[in-house]
Amino acid sequence: MTPEPRYGAGLWHFAQYVDRYATDGYGPPVTTLEAIDLAGQVGDLAVVDLNFPFNPPGLATAEVADALKRNNLGVVGITPEIYTREFCRGAFTNPDAAVRRRTFELVSEAVGVASELGADYVKLWPGQDGHDYPFQVDHAQIWSYAVTGLRSLARAFPETKFAIEYKPREPRVSMFFSSAAKTLLAIGDMDVPNVGILLDFGHSLYGGESPADAAQLAIDYGRLFGMDVNDNLRGWDDDLVAGTVHPIELFEFFYALRECGWDGVWQLDQFPFREDSVEAAREGISVMRTIHRALDALDVEALRAAQDRQDALAAGKIARRALLGAQAGG
Amino acid sequence: MTPEPRYGAGLWHFAQYVDRYATDGYGPPVTTLEAIDLAGQVGDLAVVDLNFPFNPPGLATAEVADALKRNNLGVVGITPEIYTREFCRGAFTNPDAAVRRRTFELVSEAVGVASELGADYVKLWPGQDGHDYPFQVDHAQIWSYAVTGLRSLARAFPETKFAIEYKPREPRVSMFFSSAAKTLLAIGDMDVPNVGILLDFGHSLYGGESPADAAQLAIDYGRLFGMDVNDNLRGWDDDLVAGTVHPIELFEFFYALRECGWDGVWQLDQFPFREDSVEAAREGISVMRTIHRALDALDVEALRAAQDRQDALAAGKIARRALLGAQAGG
Amino acid sequence: MTPEPRYGAGLWHFAQYVDRYATDGYGPPVTTLEAIDLAGQVGDLAVVDLNFPFNPPGLATAEVADALKRNNLGVVGITPEIYTREFCRGAFTNPDAAVRRRTFELVSEAVGVASELGADYVKLWPGQDGHDYPFQVDHAQIWSYAVTGLRSLARAFPETKFAIEYKPREPRVSMFFSSAAKTLLAIGDMDVPNVGILLDFGHSLYGGESPADAAQLAIDYGRLFGMDVNDNLRGWDDDLVAGTVHPIELFEFFYALRECGWDGVWQLDQFPFREDSVEAAREGISVMRTIHRALDALDVEALRAAQDRQDALAAGKIARRALLGAQAGG
Amino acid sequence: MTPEPRYGAGLWHFAQYVDRYATDGYGPPVTTLEAIDLAGQVGDLAVVDLNFPFNPPGLATAEVADALKRNNLGVVGITPEIYTREFCRGAFTNPDAAVRRRTFELVSEAVGVASELGADYVKLWPGQDGHDYPFQVDHAQIWSYAVTGLRSLARAFPETKFAIEYKPREPRVSMFFSSAAKTLLAIGDMDVPNVGILLDFGHSLYGGESPADAAQLAIDYGRLFGMDVNDNLRGWDDDLVAGTVHPIELFEFFYALRECGWDGVWQLDQFPFREDSVEAAREGISVMRTIHRALDALDVEALRAAQDRQDALAAGKIARRALLGAQAGG
Repeated sequence: MTPEPRYGAGLWHFAQYVDRYATDGYGPPVTTLEAIDLAGQVGDLAVVDLNFPFNPPGLATAEVADALKRNNLGVVGITPEIYTREFCRGAFTNPDAAVRRRTFELVSEAVGVASELGADYVKLWPGQDGHDYPFQVDHAQIWSYAVTGLRSLARAFPETKFAIEYKPREPRVSMFFSSAAKTLLAIGDMDVPNVGILLDFGHSLYGGESPADAAQLAIDYGRLFGMDVNDNLRGWDDDLVAGTVHPIELFEFFYALRECGWDGVWQLDQFPFREDSVEAAREGISVMRTIHRALDALDVEALRAAQDRQDALAAGKIARRALLGAQAGG
Repeated sequence: MTPEPRYGAGLWHFAQYVDRYATDGYGPPVTTLEAIDLAGQVGDLAVVDLNFPFNPPGLATAEVADALKRNNLGVVGITPEIYTREFCRGAFTNPDAAVRRRTFELVSEAVGVASELGADYVKLWPGQDGHDYPFQVDHAQIWSYAVTGLRSLARAFPETKFAIEYKPREPRVSMFFSSAAKTLLAIGDMDVPNVGILLDFGHSLYGGESPADAAQLAIDYGRLFGMDVNDNLRGWDDDLVAGTVHPIELFEFFYALRECGWDGVWQLDQFPFREDSVEAAREGISVMRTIHRALDALDVEALRAAQDRQDALAAGKIARRALLGAQAGG
Repeated sequence: MTPEPRYGAGLWHFAQYVDRYATDGYGPPVTTLEAIDLAGQVGDLAVVDLNFPFNPPGLATAEVADALKRNNLGVVGITPEIYTREFCRGAFTNPDAAVRRRTFELVSEAVGVASELGADYVKLWPGQDGHDYPFQVDHAQIWSYAVTGLRSLARAFPETKFAIEYKPREPRVSMFFSSAAKTLLAIGDMDVPNVGILLDFGHSLYGGESPADAAQLAIDYGRLFGMDVNDNLRGWDDDLVAGTVHPIELFEFFYALRECGWDGVWQLDQFPFREDSVEAAREGISVMRTIHRALDALDVEALRAAQDRQDALAAGKIARRALLGAQAGG
Repeated sequence: MTPEPRYGAGLWHFAQYVDRYATDGYGPPVTTLEAIDLAGQVGDLAVVDLNFPFNPPGLATAEVADALKRNNLGVVGITPEIYTREFCRGAFTNPDAAVRRRTFELVSEAVGVASELGADYVKLWPGQDGHDYPFQVDHAQIWSYAVTGLRSLARAFPETKFAIEYKPREPRVSMFFSSAAKTLLAIGDMDVPNVGILLDFGHSLYGGESPADAAQLAIDYGRLFGMDVNDNLRGWDDDLVAGTVHPIELFEFFYALRECGWDGVWQLDQFPFREDSVEAAREGISVMRTIHRALDALDVEALRAAQDRQDALAAGKIARRALLGAQAGG
């Protein structure tokens, strides 16, 4: 059997969630250290992605490192919070040059923390970049802001990998980095080697992409720096537990990764608003483990032959047999 | 010219917004009294809908009444907050009988406040009622919870009107009161005269309804207790300023209301996350005023004749002529 | 093990498909008799639903009966074609009284054929009823057309069951019978016992309903007269092979049917545009058979207990275990 | 006042429509010559885009040229029908090399006709290219088919411009050329100067793009070879009359074109299934003319300043004032 991948999770999986209705939160506040301890309880996590600044803001990186160590957790990514109040009208595409500079500074700090904690990449989640209304922006201008802002970061920190997590919308009504293709196009315009994509399965799915196709594309352009999974109803980023709604496309996504020889972390980005966060992470990992087994069970040769004919019925049958049998074997 | 309608707004229009990304809010905290003063600045608002409990929670109703009075504002509705942490797994459909009782209590308190402030109705916004995952609920059971819960409230307060604001989703992935038709069906099952619908134009639009059709249906069943407007991109409840994206369907919606003789408040339910809330309200009212003028300009006889033939091109031309000319006249 | 259900299919599954691009069809023309022979080749079909008029139009019902007999097929429904050119501006809601009468006549003929062939119901697929543009119709008027038209049919043929197949849209941009709830509401207004619903899983799914919830509702109102299944990407009625995209919700749908004691035909409504139609039917039946086994394997008691707590993780785990194991056992 | 643009229409606007329900068509058959005469009746059309092969297939190009001349119509594009039965499993991405060659041949013939009739470009509408089911295709393989197929055409006919009309889906469940960004990425990979984009406003809108943004992007990459407009409900390619649902985004789209100095044909791609096709074209042109006037009325300087601040309320107000006033002036 193929060795298991390393499993990871965004640390926010274990944090308090807030939205515009439950403004008092879907549970009590959780500090960074507490969230790390919760992540440690999952039992199968090897790495986490950490929001920065930490919570509370003053918390020393060394303390975080200690907490990680005692929980036997590594760090796959650092996610600077370029989407809070200060950045609510945009980080890279903010109309105010001072905020764009502030974005540069906060990401720069995150680069330092990433280096200190040995993260693979700094993740950029530009959820406030874009626009809300028709006529609100000059689209060429915000393209320029986004491309030059990222490029200058990439050049300032040539040893750091920056992974853009694209998404069609939310919190911005129309996000700038909205799809795999648009992000790759913008990265091409940046013309730097160290900016890539963090592909979120759910963002891709509800954006109308085939996540397997998006993964293939990002890999073929040499830009798949990371990925994470979850599920939704194809209309919004629900961040449900992975595999609970769309197990077949999730399987196809992981198949594309394996076929391309991609060997990064298999990561969770779930928001269990109303569930126990540790239990939800375990469920997500259990689903990923099923898929890992299914990949070993898959008759790849027969599948490739069916795909060569674009024979949907044959290919689907081969895939279902492997997926469903694998679970039973578990 | 037909006399202008009374314009209203949900008081949350002027509050602080929070979401799962900008957890520190899209602006500073705003108390109920401050929000009332902001509403007063708009200049054209006659009434507001107030969240309850007030902010801060201890605030006396008499103080609220004073603030309303000095701003020359009446109260159209009271909206008990049955969607905060306590109710995050459901209010009426919560699996825990204690929370269902707590829902009854909080709504009962709101009935008292509504009475004290002279509101037209208590609005029920059951955003946490429903489910998130396949297999999570027994659908017959939550139907029963919803119907019996509402019925017992309606019978306990026969003098009070309760207006259900339906919506397909958010915050719950799948809301129980999801459409006009399903809400009317459930109200029929309740078999009480004092439960009706608060029709939110945006909820209807992104739920795939024709808002005009939904309004007609609710009126024909004698259940349109209130309405509010905003706009979105048909994929989510963006709560944009009314008329900024879909002015034609907004016009058709108000046309249906006038044709049916409905004469309630024309209300705003906007969330100007990144805009000045007073200015956004003024814009929304300016759009509604344009539509009010357009209704006067509309060649209703010709429109009815075109509709009788279901002649889309003729009907559309008549409507566009009225809408666009009215604005120019403004 | 629970006895297997009877499997069925719409006969159009085996016909030629045409759309606005491949106007020469996705394959050669297929007559009704040829389609019956194809259905017979599937091997596991017990019944079919037949379009009427037959193809070619003059074909005698006795000949159809012979073809069915030699293929060992019964008839579950007759579907009068109230959606062709003649009815393209509506059948029941057509602005022209002559076309509304013609609808009555064609359906009446179908009643005769249904009786002759021993069908369970006449299926009404009012795909052209509704509207396309804002302002095109008077919504109260078309409600009245639809309700009175159906009511008069139901009263004219009190021994016949009429099953309305609702759908949000296509071919009409906005269909009148758009959801389970709206159809139930209209049926209530008809006030006749012999009009019900044909619930198409795919219509429900892409209409934003939970198909299990819709089935429960139709059954609780005593109106689930038939159902069929297929799959899609939740944005359109793709009519893909059942279970190829959303096996979990399909399982939940059949679970709801069994829990309610519903024992009708398990029917396919697939459009294999680019696949072999016999093979596609076999695949769909294979998936339904897997689900049938999974229902037997399901720990219903534990599931009910989890649903009673609305415990999404526990319920999902129980369901996945049954579904995936069942397939493996097949 | 700025001189009016040339108005155009796809000739299919005046043809017979067929779909999978009204298989006998939404009206009687229409030949190419009859369709040209209908286009001539509109009165304001300067150019058309012609499907090829003509209808009936044997029709001589000279006869078509005569018909165009007597109707005073030029030719903007030729659209080879690479989406009929023969190509239903794909044109450029078909698994069968013989069909891929046949695609090359048919497009080559269209190049000859385009040259003969003086068309600006050959339009490629690859509606059957892509996939329907998970696991059906090897995404890298079909990328390669699409890129090499288009590249070889472009190199074989270096004097001809090829305009790809992208769309998310329909008839294929998932089209290969699905968005502006993905099409630009693939064009970049082709590395030829004479392949570009035909931007359909409706495709962009229901694909979740901002059409103005997509236009800007295509122009900035030097690849906007053509465009056409229509409207829809953002969930499907309804091809409604332009401006009947989304006049504001249509206005923004034309604003982006003018700001970029793009001066091509303003073209209609409407499918008036249930309306008179000549009347529907006149309505669409009337809407475009209103927008043309509105562009002249627009306070561009103030708008640019508002966009520079990303001030949604101010920008929207400026745009609405121009759009609505322009109509009134008409």
